[in-house]
Amino acid sequence: MDHTQRRQVLRLFTYGLYAVMCHDTSDVNAFTANWLTQVSFEPPLLAVSVENISKSLSMILQSGRFTVNVLRSGQRELAATLGKSALKQPHKMANIVYDINEDGWPILREALAWVACEVRQSLLTGDSTLIVAEVVNIGVLSEGQALTMAETGFRHAG
Amino acid sequence: MDHTQRRQVLRLFTYGLYAVMCHDTSDVNAFTANWLTQVSFEPPLLAVSVENISKSLSMILQSGRFTVNVLRSGQRELAATLGKSALKQPHKMANIVYDINEDGWPILREALAWVACEVRQSLLTGDSTLIVAEVVNIGVLSEGQALTMAETGFRHAG
Repeated sequence: MDHTQRRQVLRLFTYGLYAVMCHDTSDVNAFTANWLTQVSFEPPLLAVSVENISKSLSMILQSGRFTVNVLRSGQRELAATLGKSALKQPHKMANIVYDINEDGWPILREALAWVACEVRQSLLTGDSTLIVAEVVNIGVLSEGQALTMAETGFRHAG
Repeated sequence: MDHTQRRQVLRLFTYGLYAVMCHDTSDVNAFTANWLTQVSFEPPLLAVSVENISKSLSMILQSGRFTVNVLRSGQRELAATLGKSALKQPHKMANIVYDINEDGWPILREALAWVACEVRQSLLTGDSTLIVAEVVNIGVLSEGQALTMAETGFRHAG
């Protein structure tokens, strides 16, 4: 298998781009994820692939919770900021506006909508861990179109 | 959680639409999948959610193999045909043109590209089974843009 061709084909896949937020007892973090999909209607489950070396993976596994914040078309710059590694850019959250709602869910104020998720299963899949989570709450913040990877021009596949 | 709002928010997620092809000793089948994403770079893994009640799930689990065929923009009608249940429409493959390549992979002739996958793990996730598979071969058939769920207007989320 030619690696250039592998990258070319796997980059034909269509993705959205989401801000996943998580927390532990002392900290809130956010990262961007495009390897994310619903996987079941009943119960409503989604799966997200999280890099094994990320700060957020251990936060998600320890808390058992995260939110998926649906970014809005036009928020490429916000996505670029959130897409930086928290380990390399420890202050990346400094100018990010979010709320912790009454149930403790971190919600990005500029998102279109948020999805509160509780971890049900996790699976080591190569360089990442696939988190399967149940949708336990949901909220709409505003109307609009969702940001897509195609709009951003970012590449995270291959 | 309000079910109408849940559907509204989960339908904001961005999806492609792919033709997954599988086979057993006597039969070849194809179905459309949008709940599909890469999940690891090294090794290259992808995950696809397959309905538990589908004919294809047992074919994939028994053979341990399937191909993801990247549909082309404009192939909404082909996707609609492949999206029918093989259990309810046993002749749905009658007019579908595909080849079995020298390594035994079923390849949709009209696709943009194909990805040959070997099953590595499977996980029961609610009403579906999440198949994690390694990309073991790949091929490009033609140039073009990939079909997206947004283009088709189909809904399979919520």
